[in-house]
Amino acid sequence: MEKQEQLYEGKAKRVYRTSNPDVYWIEYKDDATAFNGEKKGTITGKGELNNRISSIFFTMLKEKGIENHFVEQLSNHEQLVRVVEIIPLEVVVRNVAAGSLAKRLGFEEGTVLAHPIVEFYYKDDALGDPLVNDAHIKLLGIASEEDVRYLEELGLKVNEVLRPYLAERKVMLIDFKLEFGRTRDGKIILADEISPDTCRFWDAETKEKLDKDRFRRDLGNVEEAYQEMLRRIGGKEHV
Amino acid sequence: MEKQEQLYEGKAKRVYRTSNPDVYWIEYKDDATAFNGEKKGTITGKGELNNRISSIFFTMLKEKGIENHFVEQLSNHEQLVRVVEIIPLEVVVRNVAAGSLAKRLGFEEGTVLAHPIVEFYYKDDALGDPLVNDAHIKLLGIASEEDVRYLEELGLKVNEVLRPYLAERKVMLIDFKLEFGRTRDGKIILADEISPDTCRFWDAETKEKLDKDRFRRDLGNVEEAYQEMLRRIGGKEHV
Ligand SMILES: Nc1ncnc2c1ncn2[C@@H]1O[C@H](COP(=O)(O)OP(=O)(O)OP(=O)(O)O)[C@@H](O)[C@H]1O
Ligand SMILES: Nc1ncnc2c1ncn2[C@@H]1O[C@H](COP(=O)(O)OP(=O)(O)OP(=O)(O)O)[C@@H](O)[C@H]1O
Ligand SMILES: [Mg+2]
Ligand SMILES: [Mg+2]
Repeated sequence: MEKQEQLYEGKAKRVYRTSNPDVYWIEYKDDATAFNGEKKGTITGKGELNNRISSIFFTMLKEKGIENHFVEQLSNHEQLVRVVEIIPLEVVVRNVAAGSLAKRLGFEEGTVLAHPIVEFYYKDDALGDPLVNDAHIKLLGIASEEDVRYLEELGLKVNEVLRPYLAERKVMLIDFKLEFGRTRDGKIILADEISPDTCRFWDAETKEKLDKDRFRRDLGNVEEAYQEMLRRIGGKEHV
Repeated sequence: MEKQEQLYEGKAKRVYRTSNPDVYWIEYKDDATAFNGEKKGTITGKGELNNRISSIFFTMLKEKGIENHFVEQLSNHEQLVRVVEIIPLEVVVRNVAAGSLAKRLGFEEGTVLAHPIVEFYYKDDALGDPLVNDAHIKLLGIASEEDVRYLEELGLKVNEVLRPYLAERKVMLIDFKLEFGRTRDGKIILADEISPDTCRFWDAETKEKLDKDRFRRDLGNVEEAYQEMLRRIGGKEHV
């Protein structure tokens, strides 16, 4: 496989074409942003850590029957993925109230929800990734109602795999954001990344945050938290 | 019927008990608020105008088969209504992009939507009446999924009656907010008010705003706009 021209540089990753039209080459970056890009910084080693953490999660999810874009890890900060057309919706699944849900509904952070819930946010930086309901999604022409129900189902399925997997490793899965895309033949599969950038992970005993909230809220030991997450899911300290 | 003790004073109305346990006495006020109470003012005559406008709309809706709380108009600024337990959801129906929808989805104000849409907002002043999805509503224990679908259906039904009714009177119905409540025997019926405070009305030809946006946006001639709306739907100039 050969890395070709860069197609897109996001806040967390660079996407390159390859000699295979069905495969992209992804490079994970150390850049960190929060609050819709208002807060900017660098987390040393984040590119490596997220690439390795995401590779482990996606490999595990594939084994559990959840089709996704992951092809193979190339190096500490690079991986190959299947090309998809990203559906511009952030699919957020929550088990415990935190962040914007706690604020929206007035729940205390840490309140365990009666059941996992799914939210959709419209991926649009200029609009600040607003929460959208089914009618908004239909109006925007982003996805059919059937597809929306399928995304919801997939989100809950990922939760049902990830949650016990992490519980065994003494990590509480508070919430997470997924992105899905359509393959050339129209199938919807899981894409993007699953990492401390896109999930809230709390140590099951101490409730210590092991995710990007350490950066968002200036809690310190950000890199250490990401490293700890890699350690918990069995990643070797260094490749 | 006898007016008894005041039960509640809202931003727009006062609610009194009556000698009939199934009936409340509502007094419409001239107070105007916007942006979750941040902007405050008085619109001379608003209490009268909204009481009369809402009475006309609710009477018409009842004739068209949409059950609601309206019992009778008592005076210029008073009416009797059936007691309900208000469901703490604002049911918003939209035909044309304006206000928060235009902002949320990046639509230009005035864009006609491909189809009417329904949104739910959680009636909670402290939280700023946030948009909620079906999962949030379930989590809050506000209404069953069946009830949510029914509220959606009722909202669209009200729209199907109001929209042509207003079109005949050269008024474009941009959007509106409804409140529903449960009667003692558990039936869900339309309640609260339908007025220039709770709807966006535009003159069909000039697109002049005939609603509370004149107050929100300091456009002037607020009272005149409310008066014009009363005139359009056939209210006599003064009772
Ligand atoms: N398999 C894939 N095929 C195509 N694009 C992908 C795939 N996986 C992820 N992407 C996209 O790669 C882009 C770069 O990722 P990154 O996380 O850096 O973006 P971002 O800064 O979060 O911006 P965005 O708001 O576009 O997600 C994103 O737009 C993401 O949706
Ligand atoms: N038929 C009814 N039975 C009981 N309560 C009603 C009925 N119709 C309206 N109400 C309630 O009367 C209250 C007073 O109305 P008003 O519009 O002034 O309230 P508000 O300031 O908008 O506050 P709120 O946020 O409670 O709606 C509201 O809480 C409204 O929901
Ligand atoms: Mg991203
Ligand atoms: Mg009100």
